[in-house]
Amino acid sequence: MSTIEDVARLAGLSRTTVSRVINNHPYVSEDKKKRVKFAMNTLGFVPNSAARRLRKQRTETVAVLVPRVTNPFFSRLIESLEIFASDHKYKLIICQTRYLPEKELEYLELLSTKQVDGIILCSLQNKWSIVEPYLQHGPIVMCNEYTDEAHIPMVKFNQAEGAYVATKHLLEQGHRRLLFCSGSDKSSMIVQHRKKGFLHAVSEHKEQVDSVEFVEDAYDMEDGCRVFRDLLDTKENPTAIFAGGDEVAAGIILEAKRHQWSIPEQLAVIGFDNQLLSEIMEPTITTVCQPVDQMAKKVIELMMEKIRTKTYKKQEVYEFELELMIKGSTVKHTTVLA
Amino acid sequence: MSTIEDVARLAGLSRTTVSRVINNHPYVSEDKKKRVKFAMNTLGFVPNSAARRLRKQRTETVAVLVPRVTNPFFSRLIESLEIFASDHKYKLIICQTRYLPEKELEYLELLSTKQVDGIILCSLQNKWSIVEPYLQHGPIVMCNEYTDEAHIPMVKFNQAEGAYVATKHLLEQGHRRLLFCSGSDKSSMIVQHRKKGFLHAVSEHKEQVDSVEFVEDAYDMEDGCRVFRDLLDTKENPTAIFAGGDEVAAGIILEAKRHQWSIPEQLAVIGFDNQLLSEIMEPTITTVCQPVDQMAKKVIELMMEKIRTKTYKKQEVYEFELELMIKGSTVKHTTVLA
Repeated sequence: MSTIEDVARLAGLSRTTVSRVINNHPYVSEDKKKRVKFAMNTLGFVPNSAARRLRKQRTETVAVLVPRVTNPFFSRLIESLEIFASDHKYKLIICQTRYLPEKELEYLELLSTKQVDGIILCSLQNKWSIVEPYLQHGPIVMCNEYTDEAHIPMVKFNQAEGAYVATKHLLEQGHRRLLFCSGSDKSSMIVQHRKKGFLHAVSEHKEQVDSVEFVEDAYDMEDGCRVFRDLLDTKENPTAIFAGGDEVAAGIILEAKRHQWSIPEQLAVIGFDNQLLSEIMEPTITTVCQPVDQMAKKVIELMMEKIRTKTYKKQEVYEFELELMIKGSTVKHTTVLA
Repeated sequence: MSTIEDVARLAGLSRTTVSRVINNHPYVSEDKKKRVKFAMNTLGFVPNSAARRLRKQRTETVAVLVPRVTNPFFSRLIESLEIFASDHKYKLIICQTRYLPEKELEYLELLSTKQVDGIILCSLQNKWSIVEPYLQHGPIVMCNEYTDEAHIPMVKFNQAEGAYVATKHLLEQGHRRLLFCSGSDKSSMIVQHRKKGFLHAVSEHKEQVDSVEFVEDAYDMEDGCRVFRDLLDTKENPTAIFAGGDEVAAGIILEAKRHQWSIPEQLAVIGFDNQLLSEIMEPTITTVCQPVDQMAKKVIELMMEKIRTKTYKKQEVYEFELELMIKGSTVKHTTVLA
């Protein structure tokens, strides 16, 4: 078993420098860090992690649970969380639950087995009462998704307001028949709050509105294509769709174009997320912009504070506002390629 | 400290059932699993992980290191790896290195601190000699990226052949001035092999070819836009571009369209990856399809075998073939929206 002295000797550096590198002190040059790490690895020296963790009781690792890493909203959120965690010398490990309750529990066990110091939950697949007991092993912070029952820190977007402003924009274009798409609304407060905002706008224009329909389980582009095809079977199809996501909106538009419909003249579509996709599509997609970086920064700050203070079983809610971005899929000739 | 008997009592199930749930036996109903997990959490019972890990010497967790989770190629790869790992009851945790050598080393330490059983490397930011010493702590499998120096299992695509077939396609359209885009070619064998395939095709058509140019550091859509703008400053601009990725290709096409160029008449562009993006763009993007699922399956199989046998310091190379997908950005009217 090699010692810290062996590492210092091989690296040609002082014991203090080695110790600084091990403890992530600032003011150690990159070159010295590399030499120490190389020496540690050559000797098979584990930075007395057992002793260190016992002393600090920390893994300096946080896990983030997301349903799907291929969803650009989540991959952007992860990227941002990782950058802010890194500023605090924390590693961020990412776990994909695929919307499965049992996978969520498996990854929550990283907390009880002390593989991570805290967990960031970006969706909630189990009832809160099932998740809550894990809190005894460390802090959980909710990010994007939320639930009134949880007495933990939560950072979210004002979904109701975002949906309200988007729907109001559709109604101001004179639409009378509206379709609201969402994922499953049983589990997600996001969907419920968006629906609330949507209905609020509708109620303000109730003389104008002839029909309002709802479609569930719309998550990706393929679902969007299906939404459009289903709409062909209806007698009086909606003229405006709140798609709930840019991928769903893109699917609706692609399929509509395949059927020679013109967008927005025959059908107005509004997305959500302001993904790159909304810029690339022709027409570009009117969407709702979510300040992902601001949310990620707040989540990491809260997590660091909770790991430090070890008091985190109190409800704290932080909310960021959303912004409507009007593009070509709802208003003709608003954006020109130039 | 609660015992397994306490858990059984609270869950209203037998000790055997509790033990089965803890050890991930098959044939336990989801309902029973949930009851056991709930009881374990309520009592703060850690599934004797210390004893269990000591006995099995395993965390049942594997880490995958990728440069960028927002790159659709990597997010699709991660999704696939996670699904196959899950089939083996393994958790997959995802780490983003942002192309930074020091982040790669930080995450490699998950192996020396025994937080994971093995590491899948999807890129290589350090010299292999810096990474190699980590092998004493557990298996490393390379996936997609590769290096001749490493004596470990590696699963890769036949990049040279992919680039050769793509370039040949461009040359068969009669192009005389070609541009080859890539990331940095110093560190990546992928780039070097693609360049080799590109030059092989060029050498077969050397009477036809007037000029060949190279651009580095092209990774995303923004870089693609820049590539096009730079090309406007040249006297005799290339008429065909091997973009190295669908995002770069999309950037080139978007910027070309902003300048009223028609694609493929004035400029043919070929991507790489067969991302969704290549279907959405107008025109659709000719691209090279990589069988990501096959690669992911092989990587997980190898990782499981290496964790089990504990012998993994031998070079084993597995290679999958790539396929050219001809679409609208190189040949006019090949794809019709229908």
